Amino acid sequence: MREKTLGANFEQRLSATAIQVEAALESLLSPQTRKGETRRPARLLAAMRHAALGGGKRLRPFLTIETAALFGLAPEVAMRAACAVELVHCYSLVHDDLPAMDDDDLRRGRPTVHKAYDEATAILAGDCLLTYAFEVAADPATHDDPALRVELVRLLALASGLGGMAGGQALDLEAERRQHKLSFEETLEMQAMKTGALLAHAVEAGALLGRADARQMAALLRFGRLIGQAFQIADDLLDACSDAATLGKRAGKDAERNKATVIAMLGLDGAEQRRDALIEDAVAELQSLDFGTRADALIEAARFVAGRRS
Amino acid sequence: MREKTLGANFEQRLSATAIQVEAALESLLSPQTRKGETRRPARLLAAMRHAALGGGKRLRPFLTIETAALFGLAPEVAMRAACAVELVHCYSLVHDDLPAMDDDDLRRGRPTVHKAYDEATAILAGDCLLTYAFEVAADPATHDDPALRVELVRLLALASGLGGMAGGQALDLEAERRQHKLSFEETLEMQAMKTGALLAHAVEAGALLGRADARQMAALLRFGRLIGQAFQIADDLLDACSDAATLGKRAGKDAERNKATVIAMLGLDGAEQRRDALIEDAVAELQSLDFGTRADALIEAARFVAGRRS
Repeated sequence: MREKTLGANFEQRLSATAIQVEAALESLLSPQTRKGETRRPARLLAAMRHAALGGGKRLRPFLTIETAALFGLAPEVAMRAACAVELVHCYSLVHDDLPAMDDDDLRRGRPTVHKAYDEATAILAGDCLLTYAFEVAADPATHDDPALRVELVRLLALASGLGGMAGGQALDLEAERRQHKLSFEETLEMQAMKTGALLAHAVEAGALLGRADARQMAALLRFGRLIGQAFQIADDLLDACSDAATLGKRAGKDAERNKATVIAMLGLDGAEQRRDALIEDAVAELQSLDFGTRADALIEAARFVAGRRS
Repeated sequence: MREKTLGANFEQRLSATAIQVEAALESLLSPQTRKGETRRPARLLAAMRHAALGGGKRLRPFLTIETAALFGLAPEVAMRAACAVELVHCYSLVHDDLPAMDDDDLRRGRPTVHKAYDEATAILAGDCLLTYAFEVAADPATHDDPALRVELVRLLALASGLGGMAGGQALDLEAERRQHKLSFEETLEMQAMKTGALLAHAVEAGALLGRADARQMAALLRFGRLIGQAFQIADDLLDACSDAATLGKRAGKDAERNKATVIAMLGLDGAEQRRDALIEDAVAELQSLDFGTRADALIEAARFVAGRRS
């Protein structure tokens, strides 16, 4: 009974946060130039807005905000750091959808940026969302302490670049194109980089804002990595079992492309079992920190990640 | 006589700095992972190295290092900040060369990254160079003071993104594709964003490291913007008057594409005169700061920008 109530509260909390994140991104991506900008070219800004506004569960910002809330921080305090993470996520979707990469026409049920605009604009819009993420994180409005802001920047870059998200995307594409079958361990590593690194950073950013001690930081990072792994399996299960109407993007791509997934290796049932085990490990990490009911939203978020239907 | 001697010293100083910058970039782009990175995928790293190593005058790092030297700082102290600026410059070349953008096959006499590798790798290599620039700037090794580092990050992002370099590239492409003839003022604004913003930031970064006061910072920023304008005219003159063998990239593109340039508006002689006037204004800005002979290298750099032959 308690779990059901929590579930309903959780969905409300997730969508309330999504609305706040949308408003914050809307304000960050307004046509208004700030000091140091010559001008915001209209078409480029429109493409950035197409990529970043009007949709998404905003799971990464939610993780940042709810991790900060473990330490008693209000959502507003974590909002800009959360938006920086989301801007990186949005840039990655724009570039991953490009014809030279995954070549997707649909995203969240709408045309991808290169379809709605053109390829050059999509490349530049992605570049600008990424650049803007670092500017947002570095700006004094994000936090009073410059040492904390610069650490947000550094960790966001580490999670997103060569040794993280973008590196994982490169490994994934390379395996697909060279028809090099990744081993189980290689697949897990690739996914930990491609999907896990930024999700784990979303948690890490919240922990940093909350001034987590070393033990808390380590457990929260493990939590983030575990839900990252579960998230990727859930994503693969969605691709394997949904249709495009439910998914808002093309379905069944992975099998078609012979992509390295946990499903291809463990089967549907094996993948589901692994996903659930990962979530229970993640929950145990959180519970080890004795945050009591303050951790409920993150626990629910972990279960949501496993059970999501789109 | 003095000018000739200075000129010879200047070329030596510029190439000595280029060698130091190359070594620093080589070390930053080594296969060795750092803490927080899962792994550096070999092919992606090779593409980043192709883009960032083995050439270039390293004018932007030189500007950062020589501006810091005005304030008595040794080259090593400014080197990582200088590399961050250069990494952003290198990323911009990789993305600008893509088929969907300027579609160039040659850069510094070598195949462009998407030719030597493939388009997807070029997009990701550019993304990773950009991301890495911010990580390098944010890392404690760059400077002891986190407030200074986070300001380097913020200003680098401002100069590179929507309201700076990438925004300028978008305006340039848009004018070309829609065959919308930019006015003289629009052309100057586009170029100030596309080329000027990052060059001016290279100077600004050095001034920041040197703890320039408000008057010095303002004059140095004007200096940077003026040489940025002169640089773009020199670039256009090179494109109009060289062949590919001298240039190491395709020549005569601008006229062919009917691109907005100062030459198209003022003619060759008019453009040269404007370039020279900009350089003299830039030199006057520097001389107003009473740095004496310490400013010689930057003054020579300004004249070098105007007179460069490749």
